[in-house]
Amino acid sequence: MTMKHTEKRLSWLSCLPGDVPDGLRTPLDAAWTEIAGATCVKDTSRITLCPREDMGDSWEIAKDGADITITGGPTGILYGAYGLILALAAGEPLPQGRQTPRYALRMLNCWDNADGTIERGYSGRSLWFEGGRLSWDKQRIRQVGRMLASVGLNVLVINNVNVREPAQELIEDWLPQLAELAAELRPFGVRLMLSVDYSQPMRHGIPTADPLDEAVQQWWKDTAKRVWRAVPDLAGFLVKADSEHRPGPFTYGRNHAEGANMLARAIRPFGGMLVWRCFVYNCQQDWRDTTTDRPMAAYQHYVWLDGQFDDNVILQVKNGPFDFQVREPLSPTLLAMRKTNLAIEFQLAQEYTGQQIDLFAMAPLFEETLRQMGPERVMSIAAVSNLGRDACYTGHPFAAANLFCYGLAAWNPEVSAEAALRRWARLTYHLPEMQETALTQLLLNSREIYEQYTAPLGLGWMVTPNQHYGPNPGGYEYQAWGTYHKANRDAVGIDRTQKGTGYTLQYPEPLRSLYENLDTCPDNLLLFFHRLPYDYRMRDGRTLIQRIYDDHFEGYDRAEAMARTLASLDIPDPDRTEALARVALQLRNAREWRDVINTFFYRFSGVKDEHGRTIYD
Amino acid sequence: MTMKHTEKRLSWLSCLPGDVPDGLRTPLDAAWTEIAGATCVKDTSRITLCPREDMGDSWEIAKDGADITITGGPTGILYGAYGLILALAAGEPLPQGRQTPRYALRMLNCWDNADGTIERGYSGRSLWFEGGRLSWDKQRIRQVGRMLASVGLNVLVINNVNVREPAQELIEDWLPQLAELAAELRPFGVRLMLSVDYSQPMRHGIPTADPLDEAVQQWWKDTAKRVWRAVPDLAGFLVKADSEHRPGPFTYGRNHAEGANMLARAIRPFGGMLVWRCFVYNCQQDWRDTTTDRPMAAYQHYVWLDGQFDDNVILQVKNGPFDFQVREPLSPTLLAMRKTNLAIEFQLAQEYTGQQIDLFAMAPLFEETLRQMGPERVMSIAAVSNLGRDACYTGHPFAAANLFCYGLAAWNPEVSAEAALRRWARLTYHLPEMQETALTQLLLNSREIYEQYTAPLGLGWMVTPNQHYGPNPGGYEYQAWGTYHKANRDAVGIDRTQKGTGYTLQYPEPLRSLYENLDTCPDNLLLFFHRLPYDYRMRDGRTLIQRIYDDHFEGYDRAEAMARTLASLDIPDPDRTEALARVALQLRNAREWRDVINTFFYRFSGVKDEHGRTIYD
Repeated sequence: MTMKHTEKRLSWLSCLPGDVPDGLRTPLDAAWTEIAGATCVKDTSRITLCPREDMGDSWEIAKDGADITITGGPTGILYGAYGLILALAAGEPLPQGRQTPRYALRMLNCWDNADGTIERGYSGRSLWFEGGRLSWDKQRIRQVGRMLASVGLNVLVINNVNVREPAQELIEDWLPQLAELAAELRPFGVRLMLSVDYSQPMRHGIPTADPLDEAVQQWWKDTAKRVWRAVPDLAGFLVKADSEHRPGPFTYGRNHAEGANMLARAIRPFGGMLVWRCFVYNCQQDWRDTTTDRPMAAYQHYVWLDGQFDDNVILQVKNGPFDFQVREPLSPTLLAMRKTNLAIEFQLAQEYTGQQIDLFAMAPLFEETLRQMGPERVMSIAAVSNLGRDACYTGHPFAAANLFCYGLAAWNPEVSAEAALRRWARLTYHLPEMQETALTQLLLNSREIYEQYTAPLGLGWMVTPNQHYGPNPGGYEYQAWGTYHKANRDAVGIDRTQKGTGYTLQYPEPLRSLYENLDTCPDNLLLFFHRLPYDYRMRDGRTLIQRIYDDHFEGYDRAEAMARTLASLDIPDPDRTEALARVALQLRNAREWRDVINTFFYRFSGVKDEHGRTIYD
Repeated sequence: MTMKHTEKRLSWLSCLPGDVPDGLRTPLDAAWTEIAGATCVKDTSRITLCPREDMGDSWEIAKDGADITITGGPTGILYGAYGLILALAAGEPLPQGRQTPRYALRMLNCWDNADGTIERGYSGRSLWFEGGRLSWDKQRIRQVGRMLASVGLNVLVINNVNVREPAQELIEDWLPQLAELAAELRPFGVRLMLSVDYSQPMRHGIPTADPLDEAVQQWWKDTAKRVWRAVPDLAGFLVKADSEHRPGPFTYGRNHAEGANMLARAIRPFGGMLVWRCFVYNCQQDWRDTTTDRPMAAYQHYVWLDGQFDDNVILQVKNGPFDFQVREPLSPTLLAMRKTNLAIEFQLAQEYTGQQIDLFAMAPLFEETLRQMGPERVMSIAAVSNLGRDACYTGHPFAAANLFCYGLAAWNPEVSAEAALRRWARLTYHLPEMQETALTQLLLNSREIYEQYTAPLGLGWMVTPNQHYGPNPGGYEYQAWGTYHKANRDAVGIDRTQKGTGYTLQYPEPLRSLYENLDTCPDNLLLFFHRLPYDYRMRDGRTLIQRIYDDHFEGYDRAEAMARTLASLDIPDPDRTEALARVALQLRNAREWRDVINTFFYRFSGVKDEHGRTIYD
C-alpha cells in the first residue's frame, strides 16, 4: 500500500492540534489545553471550567448566552471539555443535563507483549513495549490518552493477559518506568491496570502459588505495597488463570473464588480492583467426546461461586460463550450471577472478524448485546484493544470507529449504533450529508455482510486454524479446541437444546425457550443451537442449504457493492487510499469464503444452487 | 523422555571407538585408523592396504590365509576398510570381487539454516551452523564423516536449498571457515557441496540475476574462482530455482537450461557439478482450477529441455511427482530424459512420514523405486538428510537405518531392503537371531503400517498443514498447494487418467496402461490415479469405503503389535528407552489418524463399518 502520511492522524479528534504540549499534570490542565487548541471552539474566553471534587466522572454544561460553563469532577471536567469540543465539531446541540457514565471501569485490555509484538494485533507493534522493556514515544502515548479520554475510557491494561517473560517485571523491576508511563496518561484520567501472572511468587523461591499458602499471600501483599507506592492510582490487576495453559488456582485444588479473593485482599488496602477473566474451558478436548460442550464451561466453572467473591473482585466475562466469533448468543454467565461484580468483555481487535482488513463495525454488536443483557447486569465493561503503532493507530482507518463506538457504549449503552457511527463518520471526515449517510450505512451493514460470507448462521470457527483469517471449514473439526460443527452428508451443527448438550438450560426464560425452539430461534443463531438437516425448511420457506448458498452469494455481492460505495466517497487521503487497498483485499477474502463454504456444503449435501450460480466441485 | 546417555552413539558403527583422533589428512589415514580401532579386527598386522590412484571409489579385498589385502582408489581404500570392518562386525563372509558404486555422486542434502535450525529437521539443531555462522564440534563432524563414508556417501550439501540470509556468506565471507570444515571431512572422502541463491549477484549492486546478463555471468565466474581457491575439491552447487517463491530464471523470461548452464559454465573450470532441483510447480494454484494438476509440473517444465543441459549439470528429481508423500508413483520425469544427467532425490527426514517419532523404514521405498525406474536411468542419487545434533544424530535411534540403507542403495541398488535392514540391525544391536529377525521384520513392515493408518491408497496430503504431522483430512483442500482429494458424499480422488488430467500420459508403456486401467492399477496407488465412488468394488471384492476402514483399523492394530514386539526385544539402552517412548507417541498418533480418517469418510459416505467397529460421528 502506498500512501501519503499526514503528520498526525487523529481520526475523530481531527479538530485538535497534532501535538499535545508537555507539562500537563491533571485532567483540568488537559481540559483547558484541548479547549484552547480545538479549531471548533471559537472564543475560549467565554468558557469557564468549574471543577467539583464530588462529581467524579460526571459533568454538566450550562449555557448562558455566549457563555459556557462546564462543571465536572476531577476527571469529569475533562470529559465535559471533550463533550463540548465534539458537540461543536459535529455541529450538534450542546448536551443537556448531567452526564454520568453507566460503568465504573471502562477498560481497554491491550494484549501487548514485552517484546513489542501484540497478540492478535493488526495495527503494528506495541506503543509502549519494545525489545523486552517499556519504551514509548511521548506524543503517541498522549494521543492514546486523548483518544481514550475523549470517549470516556478510564482504564488501560497495558500488557497481555498471557503474561510471558519478562513482562512479570512490570510489578517488580520496571516500577520506575511504569510510574512514568502512568504519569504520562494521568492528565487524561486514564489509570493503568496490569495483567499479572498467577504463578509469579514462584519466581522468588516460593515453591507454590497456592492462594491459601501464607507465603504466597504475603508475597502478593508485599508486592502490592511496592506497586502502589510507585503508582498510587493504579486501577488494579487483571488475571487470566487456569485458561489455555495459564497457571491458576486449579493447580492447587482451589476454586476460583479462593484464587481471586487472595489477590483481591492483597490489593484492597490500596483501592485496587481485581479483574478475573472467566475464560476457562478444556482446551485439550477430545473431538470424540460428545458430552463436553465448550460454551457451557464458564457457567459451569463460575455460577456456583456467585456470592463468594470479595467486593473488589470483578469477573470479566466475554460477550458470548465461545470466543469473539462473528455471531454468538449472549453468554449465560452474564445473566446468572446477581451477587458478583461483573464486567462484559468485547474484542475490538478483529481476530475472527476480518483482522482490520475486512470491514466489521462493532457498534451494532455493542447495541444489541447490552440491550439484550440489560446494561445493569454488569458494573464495568472491557474491550480488547485494536491499537498499535500504525500511523492511524488501528490498522484500518475505519477500525477507529470500533474504539470510538465502544467508548460511547461504555459511557451510555442507550446510544444507538447508527448514531454512534454517524458521529464517528462526521467527526472524522466531515463529508457532505449524503456521503456521511452512505458511510454510516456502509459501516452499519458491514458486520452483517461479513457474517453472510463467513461461517453460516452462528456456526462460527470455520477459519484457518491459529491465524483465524480466511476460510478453512474443516480446520478445527478434529482439534482439541471444542469447536466442532460435525457436518456430514445429511446435517450440520451441534444440538445444544435440552435433547442435546443442554446448553440452553443455562439461560433463564424467556431466552431459554427462544433458543430452544426452532420456531423462535433467530436465524442467525440457528446452527449455534441446533443440528439440522440440509433440507430443513427455514421460516421463509427456503431450505437450510439454499439459505447457506444465498447468504454466501449475497454476502459477496454486498461486499462488492460496499467497495463501489467506498470508492465513490470523498474520504480524504491517506485514509481513502488505505481503505480502498484494504477493501480490495476484503473482496478477495470474501470471494474465497463464498466459494469455499459453498463448495464445502455442496460436497456434503450434493444439492445444487436453485438459481444455478457457480458452486465449484 | 528420560534416558541414560552413553558417551557416543554410533549406531551401525558400534564396533568403532567413540572418538576419531586428530591429525587425519587422507582417506588412507582414516582407513588405517578405523581398522586399528575396530573391535572386530583381531590382528591388524595381517592387513595390508594397497592404494591405487586409478581405482577411484572402487575397492577389492583379497584373502590369502590369514592375510588380507585391501586394494582401492584414493577414496576406495577407505570404503574397502569399512567393507572389511562391517563384514567382520556382522560376521559375514568377506565381499568377493571388485566393489564399485553404482552412482557417481552419492549425496546427502542438509536443509540446515545458518541460525542453527533445520528445515524439516527432527533430530535437533544443525551440526555445523549456530547463531548465524558456521560453528561445529570437531568430534561430531568426524562422526558424521565416518557414518557417511562407512556407507559410501561422498557429497554433503551443508545448507538448506532455501538459502536464507546470511547463508549467502558461505560463498563469500565464510570461505575460510568453509575450508576448515571441508578439511575436517576430507579424510572421509566426503566433499562439500553448497546450496546457492540464484539471485545472489544482486547483493552486489548488479540490478539483475538474469543468466544471459554478462555482469551476472562474470560475477558467478569470479565467485567460483574464489570459492574453489578456498575449497579445491568442492563438489559443486545445488540450486532450487523458481520454486516455492525462490528466485530463478523464469523471473527473467529464461528457461531452466539457460539458467542452469550459466552456473554450470562458471564452475566447470574447477570440476564443479551443478545440481539443479526439478521441484517447480505453481504453489499459488487456485483450488477451483481443475486444469492444473501439480504432479504434472516437473515433466512439463523439464522434459522438453532434454539434451539442452551442459554435461556438468545434473537435474535432481524427487522420487515421486508430488513431494515425498507416504506413497507416490515414480516420477515420470525420471523416465523421460535420456539425454540429461539425472539424480533421484529421496527424503530421509521424515517430514510426511512420521517425523522420526513414528517408525517408517525407507529401505523398501529405495528398493522398489530404483527397481521400477531401472537403476541406470540416473547417474547420481541424493537424499534429504535426517541428521542433527541429537545424541543419536537421527531423533529416533532406528531412523539411523534410513541413512544406512540409503547409503547401501546408493552404492548398490540391487541390495534387498530386507538384507539392508537386517545388516543395520545386526551391526547396531547384536541381538540373538530370532530377535534380529523380529526387529528386521518390524522395520520392514513399518512403512506399510504407517501407510495403512494415514491417508488411504495413495491419496496423500491429509496431514496438518505446515507442520505435516498428524491428520487433517480437509486441511489442504482449499489451499494454494495443488494437493486436493475433492472428497464429497459420493467419491474421492482426482482422475489422473486420459479422461481426467492426463497425467498418466507422462508415463511410457507399460506403466501408462498399468496406472490408467482400474484392473491393473496397484491398490496402494488407486486414489492417486483415479476418482472412485465409495461403493467401488476392489479386486478382492471389498468396497472402497470398507477397504479404507479396514486399513485404518488394521494399521492401528499392527502399530500396537509392533509396539509389543519392540518392548519384547533386548535393545540396549538408551535406544530402548527412546524407542519405547517414541512408539508410545506413535500409537497416540496412529489412533488419531485411524479415527479422524474413518470419521471423515463416514461423514461423507454415511456407510457404516461392516464389522461394527467404532467409527465416531
